[in-house]
Amino acid sequence: MKTLVINCGSSSIKYQLINTENKACLCKGLVERIGAVTSIIKQEFKDEKPLKKSMVIENHAAALKKIMELLIEADNDYLQSLDEIEAVGHRVVHGGETFKDSVLIDEDVEEAIQQAFDIAPLHNPPNLEGIRAAKKHLPNVPHVAVFDTAFHHSIPQHAYLYGIPNRLYRRYKIRKYGFHGTSHYYVSRQYHKISDKPKKGSKVITCHLGNGCSVTAIKDGNSYDTSMGFSPLEGLVMGTRSGDIDPSILFYLIEKEELSLANVHALLNKHSGLLGLSGYAADMRDLLDEAESGDRRSNEAIDVFCYRVKKYIGSYIAALNGVDAIIFTGGIGENAAPIREKILGDMQYAGIEIDGEKNGNLNGDTKISSDTSQVDVHVIPTNEELVIAIDSAKIATASKQTPWA
Amino acid sequence: MKTLVINCGSSSIKYQLINTENKACLCKGLVERIGAVTSIIKQEFKDEKPLKKSMVIENHAAALKKIMELLIEADNDYLQSLDEIEAVGHRVVHGGETFKDSVLIDEDVEEAIQQAFDIAPLHNPPNLEGIRAAKKHLPNVPHVAVFDTAFHHSIPQHAYLYGIPNRLYRRYKIRKYGFHGTSHYYVSRQYHKISDKPKKGSKVITCHLGNGCSVTAIKDGNSYDTSMGFSPLEGLVMGTRSGDIDPSILFYLIEKEELSLANVHALLNKHSGLLGLSGYAADMRDLLDEAESGDRRSNEAIDVFCYRVKKYIGSYIAALNGVDAIIFTGGIGENAAPIREKILGDMQYAGIEIDGEKNGNLNGDTKISSDTSQVDVHVIPTNEELVIAIDSAKIATASKQTPWA
Repeated sequence: MKTLVINCGSSSIKYQLINTENKACLCKGLVERIGAVTSIIKQEFKDEKPLKKSMVIENHAAALKKIMELLIEADNDYLQSLDEIEAVGHRVVHGGETFKDSVLIDEDVEEAIQQAFDIAPLHNPPNLEGIRAAKKHLPNVPHVAVFDTAFHHSIPQHAYLYGIPNRLYRRYKIRKYGFHGTSHYYVSRQYHKISDKPKKGSKVITCHLGNGCSVTAIKDGNSYDTSMGFSPLEGLVMGTRSGDIDPSILFYLIEKEELSLANVHALLNKHSGLLGLSGYAADMRDLLDEAESGDRRSNEAIDVFCYRVKKYIGSYIAALNGVDAIIFTGGIGENAAPIREKILGDMQYAGIEIDGEKNGNLNGDTKISSDTSQVDVHVIPTNEELVIAIDSAKIATASKQTPWA
Repeated sequence: MKTLVINCGSSSIKYQLINTENKACLCKGLVERIGAVTSIIKQEFKDEKPLKKSMVIENHAAALKKIMELLIEADNDYLQSLDEIEAVGHRVVHGGETFKDSVLIDEDVEEAIQQAFDIAPLHNPPNLEGIRAAKKHLPNVPHVAVFDTAFHHSIPQHAYLYGIPNRLYRRYKIRKYGFHGTSHYYVSRQYHKISDKPKKGSKVITCHLGNGCSVTAIKDGNSYDTSMGFSPLEGLVMGTRSGDIDPSILFYLIEKEELSLANVHALLNKHSGLLGLSGYAADMRDLLDEAESGDRRSNEAIDVFCYRVKKYIGSYIAALNGVDAIIFTGGIGENAAPIREKILGDMQYAGIEIDGEKNGNLNGDTKISSDTSQVDVHVIPTNEELVIAIDSAKIATASKQTPWA
């Protein structure tokens, strides 16, 4: 089934056209800098030349209109008409406590996504904007929402409750939700497939290290704990996000720097993390380059980053009472060999041993632990779009078979 | 040397008179509810009947005046005149980056303690008030400041930096400091003494679980990481403090509940933790009683509390690449056998095995791990006052021998 996957960020839209029968990506595209003076669209059909255009794109609706035009305009063997698209899958960041699984989008679902605006103010509004715009262009196709939080619905209460007045959980649902669920789900399932080890009884820790970063403890195939919390700000140090921080620092900063709440929010979300520590770059590739040429701050930023991942892995080994496998994914997790080595170095206590050679020479899904390591360590490129496409195609098919739905 | 140890809280003063030669506590006392309608003083000299009085005590200066009177009024064989006191040791919570060790208090030290008011607004002001009042009554005696942060000065940079803009560390010294240092120091040293194992090469994790709670990773006898941070709010769930929390929750609460910053500060420091989770009590004894009679919220609060301690221990085992010994201390750590059992249960992966019988029958410093456990687990009652007294006596002696000081 030809399924269009749409992932709307605050000023960008990523999309893929996927054939869910053979899991092939037929086309992928990206619109960047929506609302800026000039926006950029890149699109590439399988086996075709990539296309890149600059133009004014004012908002997500205009971007989606342009995407629909380009999809059928472009030279390709895969899509002649929009009518061939049989399902649309939308990545939605926050499903709150309501959505434990992907769901066919109707008015109630749109309403629920909107109700989660205040707990996901940076993410859910563009997600919903994308849904509404896409529905206009593809009104006769089932649209499905796939939530970043859904995989984490199995986290037990002792792990998702914060140490704050219980009424705040009951009244406002302030609790740990966790994010990157689709990615943690995909790479953990992929691990079980590759290793041929059953989910039941397994203890797996997945590290999604990209621009956003999170670690998940997975027990029997289900998320047991994860480092992001109520929002994607908690947990690891990320590209521009602080991760864990003493809450007293917020009070102090507001007083000392005479910052507004909005300023502090921006400071922690956009100017912190690797960027803040290094004072230089949010991108790990740049930091590794600079660190190699001896830049002290870049080295510090890398050290803090890796130490925190190591500690989270350690805490989840304790939570699971051991670990069978550790998986790296995401831009940093898939590409930065020295980072993986630093994170898992000096962890003989847990029986973890990286093979330097394997770690430095990846080829797709790769096992990088040594033959004597008691813990399997794998690098598995994530594919959130494929999970979204498959889920969406499945739900679209079911919705057609139940005409009363 | 007869040394008076003074520990001033916001509305209380604890004190002890200690003979540092034989490490005997000659007298201990407590003034509570300073500034309230009625204050309470309790005092007990060694081998004498305890004394308890209610009276109006307006402030710390008045409380210290009363303490000085009571110390020589009371029937006792240990103190006839204040002139016999040869040193006074003051617990000071926050020494910032300035104080790496205990120090003789002169005007510059008072000034530095005052300069740390804004990073320790709840703790340093009463500490300094106590110092100034005590100096008035004992003007000819050396007064020494012993800092809660000092033991943690060995924490390396990758563990003490937050993922925020580096200039905030450089300009305001926003970093992890850690607290309860005197307690973590005492019980770790006591462990080395009892076990006759050298500090060099050792990996020890100390859990101070009282009204405030913190876990410390100790490498070669030096603090390597600790769960409290810039302030004592970070880390574990405590009696009334939240511990770790997604910083986004603060923004959300301020908007949703229309709270002022001061309200949120009070919420996280005074109404959260075990009290907030249970909606009932901040005291672990009460929660254990209630949990036993089936109270769901009390059980939840205990589960969250223990799970978080377990995760911190796990993260520090990773940071140290293994662990030789785990020490419990503080009111909960010393007295709540089911809590210790819950925290260290299901940690066979690290070779940790508690002996249920030993854990249930303590007698002073007690080893509670089983004979087959690869990790020593001890309960060691803390004695911060003794550390403060010994440090103070040592510095007082040195100050007398260097007349130019």
